[in-house]
Amino acid sequence: MTCPRIAVDAMGGDYAPDEIVAGAIRAQAELAAEIILVGDPEPIQRYLDEHESGIKLKIVPAADVVEMHEEPLIALRRKPNASINVAMTLVKKGEADAVVSAGHSGAAMAAALLRLGKLPGIDRPAIGAMFPTLLPSKSVLILDVGANVDCKPRYLEQFALMGSIYSQFVLGVEEPKVGLLNIGEEDCKGNDLALQAHSLLRDNPRISFLGNAEGRDVMSGQFDVVVCDGFVGNVLLKFAESLGGVLVQILREELPKGWRGRLGTALLRPNLRNIKQRIDHAEHGGGLLLGVDGICIISHGSAQAPSIFNAIRLAQEAVEHQVSQRIQACYQASSVVGEGD
Amino acid sequence: MTCPRIAVDAMGGDYAPDEIVAGAIRAQAELAAEIILVGDPEPIQRYLDEHESGIKLKIVPAADVVEMHEEPLIALRRKPNASINVAMTLVKKGEADAVVSAGHSGAAMAAALLRLGKLPGIDRPAIGAMFPTLLPSKSVLILDVGANVDCKPRYLEQFALMGSIYSQFVLGVEEPKVGLLNIGEEDCKGNDLALQAHSLLRDNPRISFLGNAEGRDVMSGQFDVVVCDGFVGNVLLKFAESLGGVLVQILREELPKGWRGRLGTALLRPNLRNIKQRIDHAEHGGGLLLGVDGICIISHGSAQAPSIFNAIRLAQEAVEHQVSQRIQACYQASSVVGEGD
Repeated sequence: MTCPRIAVDAMGGDYAPDEIVAGAIRAQAELAAEIILVGDPEPIQRYLDEHESGIKLKIVPAADVVEMHEEPLIALRRKPNASINVAMTLVKKGEADAVVSAGHSGAAMAAALLRLGKLPGIDRPAIGAMFPTLLPSKSVLILDVGANVDCKPRYLEQFALMGSIYSQFVLGVEEPKVGLLNIGEEDCKGNDLALQAHSLLRDNPRISFLGNAEGRDVMSGQFDVVVCDGFVGNVLLKFAESLGGVLVQILREELPKGWRGRLGTALLRPNLRNIKQRIDHAEHGGGLLLGVDGICIISHGSAQAPSIFNAIRLAQEAVEHQVSQRIQACYQASSVVGEGD
Repeated sequence: MTCPRIAVDAMGGDYAPDEIVAGAIRAQAELAAEIILVGDPEPIQRYLDEHESGIKLKIVPAADVVEMHEEPLIALRRKPNASINVAMTLVKKGEADAVVSAGHSGAAMAAALLRLGKLPGIDRPAIGAMFPTLLPSKSVLILDVGANVDCKPRYLEQFALMGSIYSQFVLGVEEPKVGLLNIGEEDCKGNDLALQAHSLLRDNPRISFLGNAEGRDVMSGQFDVVVCDGFVGNVLLKFAESLGGVLVQILREELPKGWRGRLGTALLRPNLRNIKQRIDHAEHGGGLLLGVDGICIISHGSAQAPSIFNAIRLAQEAVEHQVSQRIQACYQASSVVGEGD
């Protein structure tokens, strides 16, 4: 297999282009991937020159950028040369295999839908995000975390199937255990959406459905994939993302100021840093847009070089493990095809 | 004003009756409240005898108890002498001012609705829960956290009004800032429920509406009251409740084992305990059922004596500050009356 080609939106994000380019340089050096930077060549080249890394990166020019305050669909239409449009077009034309962007996430999703389209059998793409769990090396994939605020039961079934494929082939989980985010363990609990989704998930032989996952079960490590509508998922994701900051603030206030505190803190410093990292969801990197005909990683707007590097690695792995092809094959092989809206 | 009389469901909860009675003894000793224990007199009296506290507690006999696996409405009808039924009846007859229960929360809510009824102008009662925030002495009231899985926009408006009254008169917040839990800061963000609730909240002159609260804003301290439907609120509450346990587990794994770790941990022990307490939502006590004609505190099933004591104090404060009367007055004075379902 040839080396995955990753188109990186160099203009999107709070720290663009410098931190994006820095992450791309590291990825080009360390990963078996070909990085294509999409954006204004002048500041990109300047950064490359200033940091004589010896790394050669391909640059595809894109004059415009979708600003955070813009309405995605209008901006994408008004700015055909926006970096996210150009990056998606590279994938569409077969000149790249994946897109990574830390820019306007609504615009990235809209551009993916417009340029790449949905996979056959998928009604709605979903954004998946990894949450940490109690178990040190285990994460759980939550989807959807924001692409679809109102969902139908069969969307959740599709999220479960896409999440299972990702978990199995990219994360190497043999038989991913799927949970339905809900307000009680019992089958009869939940709102209309949850009740109907429950029976779809239970009856689908391709899904290893463990049952309802309550809020307290999300980080328990029991589940590999948890599905929910994009409203609940987004609230939970952003709540979880704020925990690292809350913890640091509380540590700052509660750790003692005198010699006892200074000594104790000094002795434990590397461990406290590890603890923060495990809790701090922001360090876990980007969200994955599943269900479009191509690989798209949507990074956090505040992503800096390490996050961008992680996002590029995610993209590389998703391409290598043929996530889109496997989702497509799964729907072609079965009769589980969307019934239209 | 006479001393608030608090009917405590001695039979409800994982540690009933012993821990419930223990919490009640402390409350009777320390608070200006009259505690009425409702339940099987024999084990209650045995506990009182064994722990010669010198405290006299009134006992009202109730032979039955609603078990956790029972369907609330059926159980309440089949067991008129269940402790939660008897406790609610005491309030209905004017023999008690409030109920505290750590038993089946669905049964407590159903019993409150059946025996006490809703306050005029309120379509749906809500359960409110306090979350910690970044600011040391500040909490935020989230409602609904589980009473109503499917909500209409005007329910959220009522939750905001009830939450504001509670925040102002019981928690002493001068002008409670209200947020609408949502997936973006902008007014145009959200699902149908959030979009419609947004304009109701914005246009209600009795509500100090600050705008949308994203998941990351919940613990920021900007808001005093955050409203949402009971599905999202319950997921968030249970997720938050699991954080204390996750943190302890991570600390156990990440704090070093050798002399450095032992010494560092020993130096910081009291502080680490404080940190856990601030994050551990379970320590913050019970939920408050707002919108029924009486005060009901719904404690966690796993509540032990300290939580029960806190719940009783919450009930006492709510009675003293006339929360129900103020909600009622607010609706009588205005034309904001439910339009029926």
